[in-house]
Order: sequence, then structure tokens, then C-alpha cells
Amino acid sequence: MNTMKFLRKKCIVFSKRRIKSNYCTFTNNHLNETGSTGSSAEAARWPRRVVSALQPTGALHVGNYFGAVRRCVRLQRRGEPLVLFVADLHAHTAPQDPAELQRRSLETAAYLLASGVDAERGVLFLQSAVPAHARLCWLLACLATQARLAHLPQYRERAAGGDAPLGLLLYPVLQAADVLVYRATHVPVGADQLQHLQLTAQLVRTFHHRFGRLFPTPAPLLPDDGSDRIRSLRDPSKKMSKSDSDPKSRILLSDGDDLIRLKIQKAVTDFTPEVSFDPAARPGVSNLVTLHSLAADKLPEEALEEARGLSTAQYKRVVADALCGALRPVRERAQALLARPALLHELLRHGAARARALADPVYAEVAARAGLAPAAPR
Amino acid sequence: MNTMKFLRKKCIVFSKRRIKSNYCTFTNNHLNETGSTGSSAEAARWPRRVVSALQPTGALHVGNYFGAVRRCVRLQRRGEPLVLFVADLHAHTAPQDPAELQRRSLETAAYLLASGVDAERGVLFLQSAVPAHARLCWLLACLATQARLAHLPQYRERAAGGDAPLGLLLYPVLQAADVLVYRATHVPVGADQLQHLQLTAQLVRTFHHRFGRLFPTPAPLLPDDGSDRIRSLRDPSKKMSKSDSDPKSRILLSDGDDLIRLKIQKAVTDFTPEVSFDPAARPGVSNLVTLHSLAADKLPEEALEEARGLSTAQYKRVVADALCGALRPVRERAQALLARPALLHELLRHGAARARALADPVYAEVAARAGLAPAAPR
Repeated sequence: MNTMKFLRKKCIVFSKRRIKSNYCTFTNNHLNETGSTGSSAEAARWPRRVVSALQPTGALHVGNYFGAVRRCVRLQRRGEPLVLFVADLHAHTAPQDPAELQRRSLETAAYLLASGVDAERGVLFLQSAVPAHARLCWLLACLATQARLAHLPQYRERAAGGDAPLGLLLYPVLQAADVLVYRATHVPVGADQLQHLQLTAQLVRTFHHRFGRLFPTPAPLLPDDGSDRIRSLRDPSKKMSKSDSDPKSRILLSDGDDLIRLKIQKAVTDFTPEVSFDPAARPGVSNLVTLHSLAADKLPEEALEEARGLSTAQYKRVVADALCGALRPVRERAQALLARPALLHELLRHGAARARALADPVYAEVAARAGLAPAAPR
Repeated sequence: MNTMKFLRKKCIVFSKRRIKSNYCTFTNNHLNETGSTGSSAEAARWPRRVVSALQPTGALHVGNYFGAVRRCVRLQRRGEPLVLFVADLHAHTAPQDPAELQRRSLETAAYLLASGVDAERGVLFLQSAVPAHARLCWLLACLATQARLAHLPQYRERAAGGDAPLGLLLYPVLQAADVLVYRATHVPVGADQLQHLQLTAQLVRTFHHRFGRLFPTPAPLLPDDGSDRIRSLRDPSKKMSKSDSDPKSRILLSDGDDLIRLKIQKAVTDFTPEVSFDPAARPGVSNLVTLHSLAADKLPEEALEEARGLSTAQYKRVVADALCGALRPVRERAQALLARPALLHELLRHGAARARALADPVYAEVAARAGLAPAAPR
């Protein structure tokens, strides 16, 4: 418990220190990168709302943690109204074992709470518990063209060489519905998701053209800390991924300290003994610096400072210490939560009811604009 | 009112006469034409339920009336449990004017009621008022392959030469959801819809393979009276269609007697004066015989009998009389209903609540099987 208190305190200190740089990112990225409307005019029209989601496919790893989970926690601590869900509908774009999916959904929610998501200040739920996502998805699918969707790089990558399920083509349309149905003004994304947010902006324009103005154009929030560029520990040319066949390529949030240390120790670097930060020329070592800076909540320069005079092998111990220190309390809290599934279910049910209270009136307005049936009394 | 009473009486007589032939169709078509399971075993497992829908795009014409509306009425009078809805979500696969769509939806419901649909014995509602349709559609879209959908003839026809909206590809998947969410055992279709029902059967198999048995495989009900083959009055090589640019190509249910007579009088036939029934060689005249037999509730041979000794021009007056007689009471009742929109809205709201009571538990079971969130308490 001392460790937890210590870490919690540390987090607050570092968050304060980081506020300025994050805030810059926030305002800088508060752009409509497709250029349809001015960002400041857009921002003034709508109450701020940040919407984000995590897929419950596979166990969460540090890339998900620093790149998505912790970002959401910090946005929320900064006072952003946060709508956050476990994207169990999206999970079905690949074949799922239902029992495993249900277990992962609960686990994902537990890790979000354990990481500090405040389910009372924000809204936390399972996507499939809110009908308005799928309902809006249908209407947006009627506004999206197949050619536009088939050109998205993520689709081309996932559909390559197979007879792709329609869900894969529809996936970014459901993503658009996911954020529009809460009138999201901001969406935390990694660079690889920018094109999906551009599609959302295009669907907003098409919707407005057909049915009148109803949605803000959600602006992307890009991280400035490298958390969307965490590499595989076994092949630093690739992103860390849930689907990599080598489990040593990633550190899971459920990994114990020993396993974390082992995976960092085995991490592929190069033959230069000193530590430096040069992602292009030295991706493996630079990835360690990134992980260190994220885990210890330092800037990369500060992390490098600590590495001065250390060999890569010695620095790996520093990195592993920082990761163990950052992940242990999250893991312990998640395990405690997962031991109380009834409580978790209750929290998610409560969250879903609050999410429906936000989404249903928006969908009702969509339906009215589109000439569909008046809303059902609940 | 005398006319109405007379017609109502006549209908009952003819329905009785037709029961035997219809019943044969019923049992003959109670097949799984994709051959996966035996029809009788399938039928025994599930309580019978007939599910049908009408699109509210454009005004209803006699092809819709005889081919869909009246068939539903007769199925219901025969004691079939009928779930019937106005497919306003499907309408959006083509651009819609929202106010016009809303008006058409109400009008379609009014014509269904005016034609004799019993909204208390069956269930009548607007598709968009029941969230489970779109929700199940998402999951089925994850089980359908794009190649399979892109090969459907109706898609190829509608998507030809343009950058088709995704909704057009998704359309038969929503149709599958439409019937499966009520566990339909039978679906009245025209011959051109058989392939969509085959897709539904395939989705049922895929669902069962992944998640266990949950749905009957809906069997098609094909008409035996030619009502799915009513031709354009201006070009009998084509089906009568809402979207034909020539309004004289179709008789609308809202057309008055004079307009009906005029359109029949102008109907394209051929240069042979006598009347005969030979759809391949004489499609125009044969179409008149079909319309006559449907409107007067006679077999084509009986209709032909009445045409004996008449020229085509003289026979057209007989056909027009029959059509006016059949359509007038429907039109008058529909107009009376449309003068009371609040009543219509109330009927549809009531129907939607009953439809949700049927569909929500099925979707809840789907969600449970697929590892999604437990059902929300309503």
C-alpha cells in the first residue's frame, strides 16, 4: 500500500508538470484536419465531450495502457467530461469465442477502473449495452460509400487476401456512430486512427447536408509523449500488438514483475552499448527510453539523463523497475476488482443506463431529422 | 357503404375458395430451398410466425397491393400470426426527403390497415421504432462476407455504375435481421426476393455454427396467383415499379376511379383484338387478365371466360371495373384513417411496443450467445 500511495502521489506531481505540454497538444490538435470548419467556431458551439473506447480483444498491453487508458485517466483528471466504453461490438469484426469475449470485456473494464478512470465523474460501459450505436451506424452506412471505406489503410491491411466480412468494411462507420451519438467534440486517437476520424468528419458533413446541423466535428487528440508509437520488444520495426504471435513482443498489464523484467531483459536492441534516443536509427533502444519515460512520467531527455553511463543491459533494469513500479498498483487494483464480478457488472449496468440517457435523445433527434419513427417512450 | 359490405362479403367467399390452393403453396414452399435441414423437422421446432414488410418509398401501387398487402391480410385471416412493419430504415438506402418519408410511412401503415390488416391480432409498426433490427444487423454483418453480398442480383442492379452507399450492400443483412429477430418461420416473398431469403438461411447456419442454435430457418411463401409478376402498363416487359418515370405505368392505391380507368385504357397491349392468357407471347394482354383475376378474386381461367367475345378495348372496361371495385373501399378507408394521424401514430406506437416485447428477448439471447453485454432492464 505504501507503493500505491507513493505512486499515486508521484502521478499527481508529474501530471501537474505535464499539464502544460498536454494542454498545448490539446489546443494544437483542436483542428478539423479536413478543413471544413474553423476549429474555434466549432468548439464554441458545443459543450466539450471526450469519447474514447478500448477493444476487449486480447489482454491489454503497455501500449494500450500508455497510449489509451492512462491518457483517458489524465484527460478526466484535467476535468474533461469523459465517455469511455469497452468496444465489444467492434470485437466481432474478427471471430470471437463468446465466453472469452465476455471475460475480456469485464477485464478491460476492470483495468480501466484500476488505472484511475472515475466512473462517477465520467461514463463507463459496454458498447453493446447502448442500442443507439448500432442504430446510428445503419443510417451512417447509408451515407458512406463503399469505395471510401475500402480505401482506408486499416481495412486494406485487415481484409488483405481474404473474403472479408462486411463488418470489417462497416467498422469505421460504427466508430463514427460511437462518437457522434455522444456529440463528441474530442477523440483521443493514435496517428493510425486519424483517417477514421476524417471519415467521421466527412459523415458529419454529409449528414448535415442532408438533414441539417446536429453534430460537432470531433477533433483528434494526439499524444505528444510517444505513447502511440510503442514498438514490439522482439521486432522494433513493428508496433506492439495484441495479435503478435510472440508473447515476448509485448508486456501485458496482467504480467507479474518477474515476467516484466524477463521481457525487458530479452528486448531486442542493437550492438551499440550506450543508450541514446534515435527512433529511426535505433528503434529498439529508443523504445526502451520511451517506455521508461512513460512509466516514470518523465520527458525522454530526463529518462536519457538517468541512462548516462549505463550500458543497455544496465539501463534495461532501470526501465524494468520503472515499468514494474507503474504497472504493479494497476494490476493489483484490477485483480481486486476482478475478484468482485458482481460489483463490476453493477458498475457497468449503471454506466450503460447513464450512457443511454446521453445517447438516446441524440438518436431520437437523428431519427426525427431523417423522417424515422418518433422515439419510443422508455 | 353497400359496395364495401358487398366487397367484404365477396372477399370472404373467395378467400374460402382460395384457401385450398393457397394452403398447397404454403406447404409446398415450406422448404428450406438451400437444403440444409428438412422442412418438416424445422417447422415442428418453432411456433409459426409470418414476418413481412413494406417499404415506404413512393406511393403503393396495385403490384404492392396484390403482391404483398393483400397476401398478408389473407395469411392473417387464415390464422397465421403476422408481424408486419413499414421498412423505413430500408428506405434510406436511397436518398430520402425526411418529411416525405415520414408522410409515406404513415400512408403505408394506413393502407395496410385499410386493406384489412388486423393490428390487434398481428403486430404492425415502423421498423425504426424497434432497436433490435439494427442491433442484430451489426452482428450479422460480421458473419456475412462482402463477396456474397456483392453477388446478389438486386444489389448489382441498384449499385450498377455508381459509387454505391454501404447501406445498399448491407440491405439484405438488415432484411435477415428483420425476420430473425422475430424468429420468423415463414416470409411471404416474390420470386425476386428468394435469393435474399437464401442469404438469411446462410446467416442462420453461420450463426448456429458459431453460437449455437437459436433461429428457425425462415421458409419462403411464394404466391400462386401471379401477384408477384404484375407488369408495367406502359412496357409489359418490365415489372410494375414505384420508380418508373412514367406515372401511367402503374395504378396507385390512391388513384381515383377515373384515373384507374384512364390508365387501363392506355395500357399497352398488342395488335391481336381477342383476349388470351399467354404471358410470354402477349405480356400486355396477359397482364390485364392477371389484374382482372386478382381484382375480381377469380382464377385466370375464370377471368378469361368473362373476356370471351370481347375485344381488348371492351375487356379493358371489365378490368377497370374490377380494379375500381377492389381498390375503392381500400382507398376510402385509407383516406379516412389518414384524416386521423393522431390515431395512426397511437396505433403504430402501440404496435412498436408489442414488437419490442417480441424482439428484445430474442436480441438479448443473441447478445448472451455472442458474449455481449447482458440485456438492459427496460
